[in-house]
Amino acid sequence: MTTVLTGITTTGTPHLGNYVGAIKPAIKRSQDDAVKSYFFLADFHAMIKCWEPERVAQSTKEIAATWLALGLDTDKSFFYRQSDIPEIPELTWLLTCMTAKGLMNRSHAYKAQVAENTELGEVDPDKGITMGLFSYPVLMAADILMFNATEVPVGKDQTQHLEMARDIGARFNHHFGEHFVMPKTIVDDNVSVLPGLDGRKMSKSYNNTIPLWLPEKQLRKHIMKIKTNSLEPGVPKDPDDSFVFDIYKAFANEQQVNEMKQEFVNGIAWGTAKQMLFEMVNTELKDAREKYNGLMNNPDIIESELKKGAVKAREYATPFLAKLKESVGIRPIK
Amino acid sequence: MTTVLTGITTTGTPHLGNYVGAIKPAIKRSQDDAVKSYFFLADFHAMIKCWEPERVAQSTKEIAATWLALGLDTDKSFFYRQSDIPEIPELTWLLTCMTAKGLMNRSHAYKAQVAENTELGEVDPDKGITMGLFSYPVLMAADILMFNATEVPVGKDQTQHLEMARDIGARFNHHFGEHFVMPKTIVDDNVSVLPGLDGRKMSKSYNNTIPLWLPEKQLRKHIMKIKTNSLEPGVPKDPDDSFVFDIYKAFANEQQVNEMKQEFVNGIAWGTAKQMLFEMVNTELKDAREKYNGLMNNPDIIESELKKGAVKAREYATPFLAKLKESVGIRPIK
Repeated sequence: MTTVLTGITTTGTPHLGNYVGAIKPAIKRSQDDAVKSYFFLADFHAMIKCWEPERVAQSTKEIAATWLALGLDTDKSFFYRQSDIPEIPELTWLLTCMTAKGLMNRSHAYKAQVAENTELGEVDPDKGITMGLFSYPVLMAADILMFNATEVPVGKDQTQHLEMARDIGARFNHHFGEHFVMPKTIVDDNVSVLPGLDGRKMSKSYNNTIPLWLPEKQLRKHIMKIKTNSLEPGVPKDPDDSFVFDIYKAFANEQQVNEMKQEFVNGIAWGTAKQMLFEMVNTELKDAREKYNGLMNNPDIIESELKKGAVKAREYATPFLAKLKESVGIRPIK
Repeated sequence: MTTVLTGITTTGTPHLGNYVGAIKPAIKRSQDDAVKSYFFLADFHAMIKCWEPERVAQSTKEIAATWLALGLDTDKSFFYRQSDIPEIPELTWLLTCMTAKGLMNRSHAYKAQVAENTELGEVDPDKGITMGLFSYPVLMAADILMFNATEVPVGKDQTQHLEMARDIGARFNHHFGEHFVMPKTIVDDNVSVLPGLDGRKMSKSYNNTIPLWLPEKQLRKHIMKIKTNSLEPGVPKDPDDSFVFDIYKAFANEQQVNEMKQEFVNGIAWGTAKQMLFEMVNTELKDAREKYNGLMNNPDIIESELKKGAVKAREYATPFLAKLKESVGIRPIK
């Protein structure tokens, strides 16, 4: 059985880039009967970089509502809040004891911060670095090993953390018995990276996103703001050099893509192309948006879905952690 | 209300030094009605330095049975296994995010290891150092702050960790509200340090201990092995230069101490002095030893005491952690 695990850090508002690049393909994959899918709201990870309680709470709500609105089947998959699984921080400690400090020293994320400090001429290379940042690969290892995930889809920048999870898990296995499966890194090079309004990758850090659940009018307004060149209507346009086309492609089927290509060659006006893009996106999201708004107005439903997910996840985590603790000597007295 | 918290790492077998220097005075203090006492078996700490499951399990059993046999009142105090309180590793993660890495860099325990590596000419100063060793002050902060302990009695070598606990707690308070009381460091300079068989401080690391629960014959045999000079019977002996007298002092009342002093001046034979010491120690421990053996043969009683302690401790820890999580934005959806 393939077990796929995906965490979503609860610090932002879902945008079209998240939808196209991550959420939609993940939900699709979770419908495969040969796959057991774990999706979790990584609120313990959020705390590493975000000390804004209202933002974390709001983001958690929005992300949970998003996955539910988009049709995630919570009976088939495991959908939970990381912080609802106390076994995860418990396992984190066990793994902390098995992790070489040298391994964390070599973490890219940590080294990038140190490099930044050095460049700025800071006396202390660790200035502003918390233990959260330094040791988060251990928490990530616990997220993964807790459910013996076999596959973890990550971006290229995350492959090192997967190696670390394997390293830490293997060391535990070596000392205390074969408990953990080594998770495979799945780097999907075909992941659709959506351009943002300014053409750079759509990302909250660039402040160029189109939020996923904008009301229709707002959505249209945002799409109208996508950067284009200044070619007049009637002048042929290169689809391969257009952010509008890039985004259109991510939503359209093959036939629609070809038709739009032709429109570009025919010199479609930017306004028309954007209107067509808006209609395409809006059609895909309309029903889900209604569900999303319904969920946001009924937070109890979201909460009970997450609670249900925690119960399901702990059916595995609780006895597994007990077995792990037993193996290190932390046991009932007998 | 004074809340005193004490952790006992579960890696060894209780010996006379532990009894005199820590257990006996702690149990005595816990009888004070103005004091709320938390005693816990620090098995998560044990894992930092001990990867021998059987030893951790056996030590946990022995230490728990010891405190119970010596009359710890588990209705009045809180007596629990650290690993039975999932809120502790959960809080550990929250505090990890609030801890400056630079703070951990300055930990004496960590720096001592680095110094050792450097002396040995290791290329990697972090060789053999785990994240458990590096970050255990965070776990210790969680142990303390979880119950808002006001006093933590520690040895001199531990005062830095208390400072760190205050530093971490204060940083959390600063960002998320006044949740934590700052624990006071209590260094008891009058702590009785018992010499071991060879005269150095009695300690498992010197392999010079007299285990607390030796059967009578074995206890006598061990005491007979305590190092003395070779002065003959009848020759006056200096009580202030005798390990036998040092240990005797720790068990005797004032009158008995004075009588023994006189015996030394009178030239008591070492064999006789040791026999008197044996009788003194044995009298004090005899009844408790029987209880201890009874408990070791009825592990279910120990287990149920610890379970009871965990329930009691979590009555405070569970709602308090929920409040802390709420303050950082980890909340039910609403």
